Amino acid sequence: MKKKYSGFFISIEGGDGVGKTTAIKSLEEKLKQNGINYYLTREPGGSKISESIRNIILDKNNKEEDPKTEALLYAASRRQHLVEIVIPRLEKGELVITDRYIDSSLAYQGYARGIGIKKVYLINSFAIDNYLPDLTFFLELSPQEGLKRISNNKRAVDRLDQEKESFHQKVYDGYHILIKKYRKRFVVVDASKTPDEIANFMFNKILEIKQK
Amino acid sequence: MKKKYSGFFISIEGGDGVGKTTAIKSLEEKLKQNGINYYLTREPGGSKISESIRNIILDKNNKEEDPKTEALLYAASRRQHLVEIVIPRLEKGELVITDRYIDSSLAYQGYARGIGIKKVYLINSFAIDNYLPDLTFFLELSPQEGLKRISNNKRAVDRLDQEKESFHQKVYDGYHILIKKYRKRFVVVDASKTPDEIANFMFNKILEIKQK
Repeated sequence: MKKKYSGFFISIEGGDGVGKTTAIKSLEEKLKQNGINYYLTREPGGSKISESIRNIILDKNNKEEDPKTEALLYAASRRQHLVEIVIPRLEKGELVITDRYIDSSLAYQGYARGIGIKKVYLINSFAIDNYLPDLTFFLELSPQEGLKRISNNKRAVDRLDQEKESFHQKVYDGYHILIKKYRKRFVVVDASKTPDEIANFMFNKILEIKQK
Repeated sequence: MKKKYSGFFISIEGGDGVGKTTAIKSLEEKLKQNGINYYLTREPGGSKISESIRNIILDKNNKEEDPKTEALLYAASRRQHLVEIVIPRLEKGELVITDRYIDSSLAYQGYARGIGIKKVYLINSFAIDNYLPDLTFFLELSPQEGLKRISNNKRAVDRLDQEKESFHQKVYDGYHILIKKYRKRFVVVDASKTPDEIANFMFNKILEIKQK
C-alpha cells in the first residue's frame, strides 16, 4: 500500500521492565549527536482529549471498568493522538517515534486480557485508518528478567507480583504472535544488552530502513 | 441466534424533534396502568464511567474532536452502560427499554457524519457483543416536520438551523437504510399521531412480540 505521507513513523514496544524508557533516551542522544531531527511522543502526548480519556482509563476508582470498554477507550485516545499530534508531523516529512502504539493494545488487551487479537485489531484499525508504523522495535527480554528488573526496586515479591508473572508471560507471548504476523515491520531488539548497544542497533536499523 | 437472557430488550430511536421524550412518557403511563414492570434507561444511565465518557463527548471546548474518536467514545460509553445497567436486568428477566442505542450511532456517526454505517457497526458490534434489541421502535416523522417542532420554541430560523436541515435529512435517510437492513427488529411508528395513539401502538406491539 502506498504511504500517505512523506515522513517516517516508528513505534517502540515491549513488556514492563524491559528498559524501554532508558533505551529510548539513549536512542535520542544518538539521533541528536548525528543531527537527525525527530519527534518523540507517547499517547496521550499532549492532546487534551486523549488526556481526558486516559484519566478515565487510569482512574483507580473505576474498578468496574469492563475490558472492552478499556480497549475502546485506548482506541479513542490513540485516534485523537494520531490525528492531532502524529499525522500533521508525518505530513511535514518528520521522523515520528512513538513510545507504544497499536501493538500494545493487541498484546495487552487483545491477548493478555483475553479479548482476542483479531477483535482488538478491528477497533484499532478503525482508529488508525492505515497509519501503521513503518518500523516497530520490540525490546526482547524474558518476562522473568523483566519482573526481576522491576522488583529490584522493591523489598520483597508479594502476591500481586506473582499474579503479575503469568500476566507478563501472556503479554510476552502476545507480542511474539504479532512479530510472526507482522514480520515486515517488526525488528526484535536484544534488551539484555547495554542501553548504548541497544541505541546503536536501533539507530543503524533506522538509517538502513529509511534509505530503502 | 439463541437469546442469552430471559428478559426483553427494546430500543427507541428517531431524529431530533420527533417527540421521542413525550412518546416514551405516554408509553410509561400505559405500562404502569397495565401493571407491566419495566426499566427505562438511556446512555449513560447512571454508570459512572459512561458518565465520564459522555462528559468528554459533550464538552463544548473539545472542538478538535475527530468524528472517529467520537464514535469510539460512544461505543465505549454504550459498552459500559450495557454491562453495568442493561445486562444484569435482562438476566433477571426484566423488560428493559432504552432511549437510543446502537442505531443512533449508525445513523448519526455512521451515515450523517459520513464515517460509514459498516465501519461504525464494526466497533459497536465489538461493544455490544450480541446484545441487539429484540425490538426497535423508530419514530417516523419527516426531518422538515421535526425541525418545525424544534423551532416552534424559537423566534427565527438562523443559519445554523439551515445547516442542520441537510444533517437532519441525512440522519433520517440513515435510519431508513437501517430499517431496510434490520426488518425483523424494526417497527416504524407514525410520530405525527398523538402521544396517546403512539403509546397505544407501541404498547400493543410489545405485547404481541413478547408473546411470540
